[in-house]
Amino acid sequence: KPATTAMSLPTIDRDTLDGVLKRRFFFAPAFDIYGGVSGLYDYGPPGCALQANIIDVWRKHFVLEEDMLEVDCTMLTPYEVLKTSGHVDKFADWMCRDPATGEIFRVDHLVEEVLESRLKGDKEARGEAADSVSGTEEKKRKKKVKEIKAVKLDDAVVTEYEEVLAKIDGYSGPELGELMKKYNIVNPATGGPLSEPLEFNLMFETAIGPSGQLKGYLRPETAQGQFLNFNKLLESNNTKMPFASASIGKSFRNEISPRSGLLRVREFLMAEIEHFVDPLNKSHPRFPEVADTGLRLLSNTTQHEGRTEVVEITIGEAVQTGLVDNETLGYFLARIYKFLIKIGVDHNRLRFRQHMRNEMAHYAADCWDAELHTSYGWVECVGCADRSAYDLSVHSNRTNEKLVVRQTLAEPLTVESFEVELDKKKFGPKFKKDGKKIEQFLNSRTQCELEDLAKELSEKLKITFNVEGVDSSVEIEKDIISIEKKTRQEHIREYTPNVIEPSFGIGRILYSLIEHNFWIRPESDQRAVLSFPAVIAPTKVLLVPLSNNEAFEPMVNELSRLLRRAGIPAKIDDSSATIGRRYARNDELGTPFGVTVDFQSVQDRTVTLRERDSTKQVRGTVEEIIASVQRMVGPDAVSWEEGTEGLASFDAAAE
Amino acid sequence: KPATTAMSLPTIDRDTLDGVLKRRFFFAPAFDIYGGVSGLYDYGPPGCALQANIIDVWRKHFVLEEDMLEVDCTMLTPYEVLKTSGHVDKFADWMCRDPATGEIFRVDHLVEEVLESRLKGDKEARGEAADSVSGTEEKKRKKKVKEIKAVKLDDAVVTEYEEVLAKIDGYSGPELGELMKKYNIVNPATGGPLSEPLEFNLMFETAIGPSGQLKGYLRPETAQGQFLNFNKLLESNNTKMPFASASIGKSFRNEISPRSGLLRVREFLMAEIEHFVDPLNKSHPRFPEVADTGLRLLSNTTQHEGRTEVVEITIGEAVQTGLVDNETLGYFLARIYKFLIKIGVDHNRLRFRQHMRNEMAHYAADCWDAELHTSYGWVECVGCADRSAYDLSVHSNRTNEKLVVRQTLAEPLTVESFEVELDKKKFGPKFKKDGKKIEQFLNSRTQCELEDLAKELSEKLKITFNVEGVDSSVEIEKDIISIEKKTRQEHIREYTPNVIEPSFGIGRILYSLIEHNFWIRPESDQRAVLSFPAVIAPTKVLLVPLSNNEAFEPMVNELSRLLRRAGIPAKIDDSSATIGRRYARNDELGTPFGVTVDFQSVQDRTVTLRERDSTKQVRGTVEEIIASVQRMVGPDAVSWEEGTEGLASFDAAAE
Repeated sequence: KPATTAMSLPTIDRDTLDGVLKRRFFFAPAFDIYGGVSGLYDYGPPGCALQANIIDVWRKHFVLEEDMLEVDCTMLTPYEVLKTSGHVDKFADWMCRDPATGEIFRVDHLVEEVLESRLKGDKEARGEAADSVSGTEEKKRKKKVKEIKAVKLDDAVVTEYEEVLAKIDGYSGPELGELMKKYNIVNPATGGPLSEPLEFNLMFETAIGPSGQLKGYLRPETAQGQFLNFNKLLESNNTKMPFASASIGKSFRNEISPRSGLLRVREFLMAEIEHFVDPLNKSHPRFPEVADTGLRLLSNTTQHEGRTEVVEITIGEAVQTGLVDNETLGYFLARIYKFLIKIGVDHNRLRFRQHMRNEMAHYAADCWDAELHTSYGWVECVGCADRSAYDLSVHSNRTNEKLVVRQTLAEPLTVESFEVELDKKKFGPKFKKDGKKIEQFLNSRTQCELEDLAKELSEKLKITFNVEGVDSSVEIEKDIISIEKKTRQEHIREYTPNVIEPSFGIGRILYSLIEHNFWIRPESDQRAVLSFPAVIAPTKVLLVPLSNNEAFEPMVNELSRLLRRAGIPAKIDDSSATIGRRYARNDELGTPFGVTVDFQSVQDRTVTLRERDSTKQVRGTVEEIIASVQRMVGPDAVSWEEGTEGLASFDAAAE
Repeated sequence: KPATTAMSLPTIDRDTLDGVLKRRFFFAPAFDIYGGVSGLYDYGPPGCALQANIIDVWRKHFVLEEDMLEVDCTMLTPYEVLKTSGHVDKFADWMCRDPATGEIFRVDHLVEEVLESRLKGDKEARGEAADSVSGTEEKKRKKKVKEIKAVKLDDAVVTEYEEVLAKIDGYSGPELGELMKKYNIVNPATGGPLSEPLEFNLMFETAIGPSGQLKGYLRPETAQGQFLNFNKLLESNNTKMPFASASIGKSFRNEISPRSGLLRVREFLMAEIEHFVDPLNKSHPRFPEVADTGLRLLSNTTQHEGRTEVVEITIGEAVQTGLVDNETLGYFLARIYKFLIKIGVDHNRLRFRQHMRNEMAHYAADCWDAELHTSYGWVECVGCADRSAYDLSVHSNRTNEKLVVRQTLAEPLTVESFEVELDKKKFGPKFKKDGKKIEQFLNSRTQCELEDLAKELSEKLKITFNVEGVDSSVEIEKDIISIEKKTRQEHIREYTPNVIEPSFGIGRILYSLIEHNFWIRPESDQRAVLSFPAVIAPTKVLLVPLSNNEAFEPMVNELSRLLRRAGIPAKIDDSSATIGRRYARNDELGTPFGVTVDFQSVQDRTVTLRERDSTKQVRGTVEEIIASVQRMVGPDAVSWEEGTEGLASFDAAAE
């Protein structure tokens, strides 16, 4: 398997890969025989097992390791909840219509594709090789963006296009509209003009109940369910802070134009963590354990300069220099890194990209995406955001249900604050029916505003202000009101926790992982191999009788039984194909080990064990081989050399 | 834990149970702080772990044990697929409206509730004790059905009501309408009249894509995705038959009036198996392994007689006598039984009820539900139906995609059939433009029809028939047509497989399981215990330091690490509550083992191990205790006596 360097990212023969994925039914378009629905995919047996194994490692790596509280909340969500969270108003993409053909485009994708194709045309005109975009995707894109025209651009225009592309995730809808005008972007297929960008909400809507009157949506993320259950979760944790909840489940986005296979779909599996933390203390007790983990980081500063280089530094240094906002956020970035490496992601095809300032939600303190490089480019696979106290606050305000932590203080806290006192006997008669409104106005002033009013009162011996709903200007004199700084002792501190949210798109990770582990065996017929780590491989062992001679059956069945008892998923391939062909089929499925039963096996209970990547073989008794496999699968798997120590190597005929 | 007998099903103190489930956050109404949405529930940490463990056992028991092909298909489903499957037209319940109040009732439930309350009133009037329906549910029902009036009914009426109730699942909408008229069933709250029964489709509808023109639904079952992928699955199985696919995922039903907690919800987890089998051979190779499994069966004959007694016989006998239609169906009933017992279902609160003839889909050959008894009555938890070739046939017809098995015959089959031959030279000129229609008509005749035509031809020397789209009657004479029986050799047999479908409602199983494992410790303060088998218990071990003295911390953390490495989920409870109170909390969570670290532990590395149900304790070294726990958890768990052999028993102070 060729090593990759940071500088030269490998190119993938995607046609060959797509062939393998289809032939072995890793996944396929859903409702295929009905013509399919774009953005919907079914996972076949190997894809489904791969997904289950990734989830299993995720649960051990995060939920069990850190004692998180896993919950399972409903996907159906009433309008009111998503109105409050902001999704009804803001969870949208910008689209534009071609009024002539009725076609709908996602605006940022359209701008991206048109500029990329112009840059490609420029390279052609200059006689440079275009970036390799392989097979199918190029064909598809060509259909949309028509033939790429070899037109040379001014150097300044090239630089401008490259800068726009580096910042493409940061533009608002109106800004994208400006770009369309500026660069004369039209329907690439017809050349016809397009409408102004319009917002399209990405949530699937439905009605709950027989009356049809309760409007609901399919959730766009699993997070809201965790926020709404905050009080119950805090209680489950014996009211201790900090703690994290976690959830694994499907979410939905009604994408405008799904593309790129599993990378942009309308229904997808997510795994999300909500780590609740004291806003005054975002340190993490286990941070020292991960501080020297080296990460490849792409900061927002670099991006705002229109560049995309990464720096590779330790997370300890990144937090110390303030590049990453706080220890807890840094801790999770390192843990995400370790998880991705464990399941087989290539270090050099993984970077952490910081969100640009205008890309981030207004309440977010900092946000980094783990991006994996694929033949479709860099793909956001894990988001890790500091959502601050936003979600708990808005739900609490809307429902009047307190979502807070009450911390008993070891020493009472002395608090100074400005307080308003009114002489009610004089205040009441003076303001009559307006009194209540004026009192409410005064009580809802901030400390800062009260300080100003106190100053005004001491200087002018009266204060003057306007209150909504009260006709004339209000004037109160010093004999009726006092505004003074007072000192109080507080024994309980009440606060709304901040939330650090690592959010995993399992389908995107799964697909990127497949690309990172895909290679072609250069010898022997260009055979494709998927080199999954044993821990996530769909099947761990292939059992292969030499031929379909009945003599092999009892031993194959015994092996199957013994492996099952050891908890090792195995499959029998007793088809009539040659051993070599059966191993080849299996390399495409990513099965790390093969056990062959031959005539000698029946006589002395020895079998051969084959390793997928090296095709090396060893021979040993049934018991030795099973023990050897057991050492090489699972989370603490040892290497082939270590796992087969003491077993005789075996030279099979060339496959 | 008191044993139950078939005759006296235990009653549950549901108020106490509900208190435990709420306090420990097994599950709770979703969107609780927004007032909730009926029929939607969130699972908290123990409920979520319980669910994950049930799924894990299910996957091992079915998918791995039988080498099934697991798939994961989308929930969003286009209209066309569900139109073909029959769900758009038939997946409905009957509801009726109160035109005065706007209230909506599910008709079968309404009839059931009203007749049950009248029977209860009759019992009161006769001075008999009413059936015990505990706390909350009774209160709720009373609200709906008003006060139960102690009115004596005629003996004949009582018998009639009881017969109707035994058959309640078998009535059509119009029949329910007749019952409403006959028994004068009105709005129980107001006494106002209700509308005729109307059909209400139970699928949630949505629109896919930005144009809003592709109508879709949330799937009502996971089965359709498996049928649509039949060809790919058969290919994955090297075209071998029989085989099964399986799927675990959420499905949705827009219930008219959700009730009974987790038992009738709008979004639920299903696990479904589609076992594809040759319709001519429904034997099962592994049937002998399960033939002597004893099941409690309630046949449709018994139900049609208005009775509900079960017979307890072996599945071998049930298949032999034809009570259960075939071996494969019988095999799955026995495997379902073994699965349910393994996860902790009470044998005496489990019965298999056969569907009545009018309750079953028209295409189904036979259908049995595994029902579990709860404080809400008998609940359908697993359906096991023979769906025949229905689904594959309708999708194949609609899409023109063959969904068949092609079996190479060991010996060619001699097939006799009537075949039509036309003398084209005479036929063409005679019928001109009508020729094609007439030929199509002849080619689409059944063998039976051809036999009749052959007879007519040999008797009358001509045949006469009408063809749609051809104006006059068609007459063909013997010199133009021959219809004769011919003999052919077939080497390939092509057939549409039949499907046996075991379908599990995981939420209903989970809830019933909780009831079956719930009891109150009679001594010591009426403490509630959930006696889950270790294999499904949310947490296996509670780690309890004697107090929050710092001296215990290192050993507690070491135990936690060692257990995690052994793959045994454990929780630390280092709160300041007394040991007894911490054990009590834990009994409510169903944790089977507790390990206590005390002052002696720190000196000699021994700890105590407590068993939840008996509260027995033993003492041993850290290593001994972990090895002991390891023997007692997991699928092949041994008993407490066996698991703790050789360890010293330990007398703790009374809890």
